[in-house]
Order: sequence, then C-alpha cells, then structure tokens
Amino acid sequence: MIKFINPSIEKPYIQFQSLYQEALANEQKGIEAISVSSYNQEMNEVEARYVNLKYIADNEWIFFSNYNSPKAEQFESHSQVSALIFWSSINTQIRIKARIFKTSVEFSDKHFEGRTKEKNALAISSNQSQTIDSFDEVKKNFHQTLNEMTPDTVRPDFWGGFSFIPYYFEFWQGHKNRLNKRCVFEQRDDEWIERLLQP
Amino acid sequence: MIKFINPSIEKPYIQFQSLYQEALANEQKGIEAISVSSYNQEMNEVEARYVNLKYIADNEWIFFSNYNSPKAEQFESHSQVSALIFWSSINTQIRIKARIFKTSVEFSDKHFEGRTKEKNALAISSNQSQTIDSFDEVKKNFHQTLNEMTPDTVRPDFWGGFSFIPYYFEFWQGHKNRLNKRCVFEQRDDEWIERLLQP
Repeated sequence: MIKFINPSIEKPYIQFQSLYQEALANEQKGIEAISVSSYNQEMNEVEARYVNLKYIADNEWIFFSNYNSPKAEQFESHSQVSALIFWSSINTQIRIKARIFKTSVEFSDKHFEGRTKEKNALAISSNQSQTIDSFDEVKKNFHQTLNEMTPDTVRPDFWGGFSFIPYYFEFWQGHKNRLNKRCVFEQRDDEWIERLLQP
Repeated sequence: MIKFINPSIEKPYIQFQSLYQEALANEQKGIEAISVSSYNQEMNEVEARYVNLKYIADNEWIFFSNYNSPKAEQFESHSQVSALIFWSSINTQIRIKARIFKTSVEFSDKHFEGRTKEKNALAISSNQSQTIDSFDEVKKNFHQTLNEMTPDTVRPDFWGGFSFIPYYFEFWQGHKNRLNKRCVFEQRDDEWIERLLQP
C-alpha cells in the first residue's frame, strides 16, 4: 500500500490516484512495488531495481534505502531517474521521469520510528549491496544488532528516504491487437502539457 | 509465456529457467512482461518501459519493436541496457545488465509470419511513440492497413526483434524482515563469477 499525504491535485496525480484505486479494487498484488532506473556515470551503465514506494506526499514520491548503496551514489551523481509501474490486474503501465534527492531528515526519522524493530535492525546491520561470504553471516549481523538495540536506538545517518518529483508521466493501457492507449503529461513551465502517443 | 530455443546451459541460465518454472507453477500473471531500461544520450536521461520477452534463444533474450521508436534510437546510441523482472508469485526479482542489438532478419521474418494479421496490421500502421491527435485516428490507420493487407504482406524493415545478451545477473529473493537473499553472477573472460550481496 502507498500512503497518500495531501497529494498534489494536478491532473496526472488525479489520474494516478484513480488508477491506483482501480488496481486496489482488482486486488493488485505488490501494488507498491515500483522499478526505479538510474544511471551509473562511472560505469556508463543503466541499472534498475524494484523499491517499495511508501508515500506520495504532495508531489514527492518517497521510498527508503541505504544512503551508501550503489543506487544512492548513482542518484547523487545523476539525479534524473525513471520510475516504472505495471499493474497487471488492470493491464496498465505508468512510466515516469523524475528528479531525485534525499527526503528531509524529519520525515526519515518519523518513518524509521514507525517501523518494526526487526526491519530497523536489518537497516542498521546491513551494508546494502556489499559482497558477503555467506547468508549465515547476514543473519548473524542481523541478530547481533537486534540484541543490541534499545528503545533509544535512532535512525542511523546512512539510512533514509529518497524523494523523486516527476516531470513526465505516460499512462499506458493495454488493449486487444496492441491498440494500446497512451497518454503523456509533460511539465513545461509549471504547466502539464497533455498529448496522445501512437501504440 | 517465453519460448526457450536451445537455451544456454550456463549457471545463471539454469537458475533462471528453474525460477521461471516455479513462477509458472505458481500461476504468475504476465510472466513474459519485463522492464527494459535504456539511456537517452541526447537528453542525458534514463528511460524504462515494459516489453514482452518472446524468446530466449541460446544466450539471446528477444523481444520485438518498431525500429524507428525512441527506444530503438537509444539502443543504437548506447547499447548497454538493464532488464528487470519481478515475479510476485514467488517474491523473486531478477536484475540483468546486458548489451542489445537487432535480431537477425531471418528470425524477425519468421516471428512476423507466425503472428496474427491483426497484430501485424498494428505493427505496420503505427508510428510507435509519435504524437497523434486522437485514438480514433489510431484505429482508422489500423483498420485501413488491415484492409489493405494481402497474404503476400511481409515484415516491414522498420519492425523486428531486439536481442540482448546478459553479462550480469542478480537473483533476489524476498524474505521476512528484509533478510533478502541476493546472488550475483558476473561475466569475466567467459566465466561467470558468483557472489552473495548483503540485503
């Protein structure tokens, strides 16, 4: 589930929320799983991974990560990303282009406080995406951190939210014989320009 | 469904096929829908979209597209792409980095011949991703092409397959408390180097 906090009422946001409700009504699994693609400047490579979209707050789309992870480095050196959603239950794809930056520390703190002790133990214990010798070692680090945690344990600086603000949306709806409907919203000078694309 | 044609028997391919069979047994919807991310050199932007993966032939992963589309231009100017799969039925994510190129004309011809007349009419009639005034116009172009088609209609030069060959795989399996299992295969001098990543 995605939490909406005073979401923007601009046209693509209204359309997104309407599709979200429709997918929810059709029992879409993993509705908050979205793919985020980034550019690795050093390697001249595109990389993509799924993240859990937790909030849409005004026009910020927020998920959480380790700030020392490869994707965090990529966001830092190339702040443009692509987000992609496919809800099979309503045969709808949503393509987004956006700028990404770190979420405010207050917001990250609050989210961390609301999570289970176990999830936070993992966030603290894991050097995300670094090589490790065995899965047993992952579990050992996790349990050690879990045992050391106290009610005073706060969010570590190396973990928190990323917010992206879209400047481009495509709403794609699949139809028979590939007669797919494609509607684009592109931001130009604070206005959303709408147009249709050929399938 | 993905068609396997003498698929590679290298280790990540074996693992992929085993997960594919598991997802299939768990009635995974849209099992052939994969996201392909590319780099738009001109705009310095990452873009992503879903495609239908049709074949894995030896080590070529093949889908079909319009060769004049924006993504085709992007593949031409930056042949490195990222492919991403998420099968919710088995809580498994597969991250791939690959090089992409046009599939052989013979393979594209054969695939085109095996498709329905309607799908081919759409492939011929649509200037993929170009702006159009209305959806009625899309339908008009489609029906006009459909009526003009004869049994001799062949694949147009501007439509065909793209093949990508992976050089990097990550198999990610979700577990409780985010204790996810992550296994990477990276190609070095024709060998696949295997290692584990922290969650």
